Amino acid sequence: MIPLPLEPEPVSGTEIDKPYRGAFDGRTHRFALRVYFEDTDAAGIVYYANYLRFMERARSDMLRAIGVDQRATLDAGEGVYVVAEANIKYRAPARLDDEIVVVSSLDKVGAATATIHQRVMRGQELLADATIVAAFMSPDGRPKRQPKAWLELFKPLAAKEGKE
Amino acid sequence: MIPLPLEPEPVSGTEIDKPYRGAFDGRTHRFALRVYFEDTDAAGIVYYANYLRFMERARSDMLRAIGVDQRATLDAGEGVYVVAEANIKYRAPARLDDEIVVVSSLDKVGAATATIHQRVMRGQELLADATIVAAFMSPDGRPKRQPKAWLELFKPLAAKEGKE
Amino acid sequence: MIPLPLEPEPVSGTEIDKPYRGAFDGRTHRFALRVYFEDTDAAGIVYYANYLRFMERARSDMLRAIGVDQRATLDAGEGVYVVAEANIKYRAPARLDDEIVVVSSLDKVGAATATIHQRVMRGQELLADATIVAAFMSPDGRPKRQPKAWLELFKPLAAKEGKE
Amino acid sequence: MIPLPLEPEPVSGTEIDKPYRGAFDGRTHRFALRVYFEDTDAAGIVYYANYLRFMERARSDMLRAIGVDQRATLDAGEGVYVVAEANIKYRAPARLDDEIVVVSSLDKVGAATATIHQRVMRGQELLADATIVAAFMSPDGRPKRQPKAWLELFKPLAAKEGKE
Repeated sequence: MIPLPLEPEPVSGTEIDKPYRGAFDGRTHRFALRVYFEDTDAAGIVYYANYLRFMERARSDMLRAIGVDQRATLDAGEGVYVVAEANIKYRAPARLDDEIVVVSSLDKVGAATATIHQRVMRGQELLADATIVAAFMSPDGRPKRQPKAWLELFKPLAAKEGKE
Repeated sequence: MIPLPLEPEPVSGTEIDKPYRGAFDGRTHRFALRVYFEDTDAAGIVYYANYLRFMERARSDMLRAIGVDQRATLDAGEGVYVVAEANIKYRAPARLDDEIVVVSSLDKVGAATATIHQRVMRGQELLADATIVAAFMSPDGRPKRQPKAWLELFKPLAAKEGKE
Repeated sequence: MIPLPLEPEPVSGTEIDKPYRGAFDGRTHRFALRVYFEDTDAAGIVYYANYLRFMERARSDMLRAIGVDQRATLDAGEGVYVVAEANIKYRAPARLDDEIVVVSSLDKVGAATATIHQRVMRGQELLADATIVAAFMSPDGRPKRQPKAWLELFKPLAAKEGKE
Repeated sequence: MIPLPLEPEPVSGTEIDKPYRGAFDGRTHRFALRVYFEDTDAAGIVYYANYLRFMERARSDMLRAIGVDQRATLDAGEGVYVVAEANIKYRAPARLDDEIVVVSSLDKVGAATATIHQRVMRGQELLADATIVAAFMSPDGRPKRQPKAWLELFKPLAAKEGKE
């Protein structure tokens, strides 16, 4: 007889239907994810552009965690964050099924931009190390000051404050 | 003074670094995820091909839950699942930040194929309804019988058994 | 001395800066593309969802060829095509660097939907065979009649006409 | 009567089935492409990671143009290029249907790495400006010297030569 393989993982009805959320550990935000087929390429490793997808998931989760609602702001026509600059060093490749963690911290906040340091880790191994400058943009594509309320939310997180 | 917004979400060090896992509710597998910018397109909704990415994540998680190690099998040169057929009805669009759940059940298992029914839900609302036929493929691209041990693992899950 | 390898491919300044366009061969639209790393996965083949990206490029090019301007219609808030149904059979995998052609024909046009038959070919070999139902959607997510002018543009292409 | 809209674009049977190829203009490689729905996100612009997909297509085309066969080298287990470093400045967003050109030049070639300068242009407007360091990697994930024959092919293209 074949044992039902399901029993070791009982479902707590509501919990399982909640998507993953990262969390802060002090000022550092941690966001875990697994590598799926969609993330890899024919070289057997994660395609280099896809680390930027992982890092954006982590940044969006970080914003959500401090109370920033990106969709409401976008829908209201107020603006949206875009990436103004990305500098990334790839140290070691991630592979299918790997469990990785994106570790993010807010380096600097200016009037219209925020600089985030993001590392992609597999356990203690650094896979990618990036500095991302996000800029707030109006719907017509111009740089715009970040909502004042958000700047307040960022304050406890930022290592250094830029000139506002 | 600005309250630290982090306190309501204390980190249980090890837990937060574990990627999300779905789980079975009886014979049905549930896999939750959130919609990120990468998933959407200029129409403001999830791009139609990306539902297939969501469904593949769910199928891979389902396989992992019952003990199938896809990467080891691939690395050993034994073969890999490919999709032989996908029939999908899109009922309503998902949008940025939506929390959705992929609900999967194994419809039928044959010697070389498995048929999976997958629904993408937002709460009680059906967003997409798909039938996916996965086929095991040898490294040279030919259909191949699924590993016998896996067929045993599938048995408790399958609604109907195909002819083997 | 090393010969300059560039000479066999002189650049006709303006031509090289024009993106690829497919074209009609009678009622059938042909759209060629090459497989890049981004399209493949760790199994060494094109990831199954990416055929839907290829097919959407071909459909968009087909619309453009007959004079439909999707972006203007989207920007004007009039609506956008979404996929209501996709049925796809995967026959053989495409691999890195493969040259493939998406062959599309308009099967049926209704008031709010269009049914397109799309085959992905590598030379004479059929890689994927799909039927796609596209539906016109208003910005608030509801089905909507296709612009009348477009229906006229479709007429010469459609094999059978649906009831309007 | 509705005129057949197809006639202005007669098909030269073989030509239309050839995927787009970029070309060199002196030492500079040009690669044109159009923005499709798959490339955009809910902000109505090209998702930031997708510029890296565009740039990789251009680099792969550049390699192909000088005679480098990446797939054969990968299949032979000799190695593959990975990106070791990417530094990108985003100047202005690309949008749906935009015609853009990736302009690439080889900045420096070392024993195991090549540095490429890549600009994404929309007409005369600079959309993104990037420096990419590509490194040759053995199948077990270690840095490896580039094939000697390839270094010879690169020589006519490189602005400055690194120390070998």
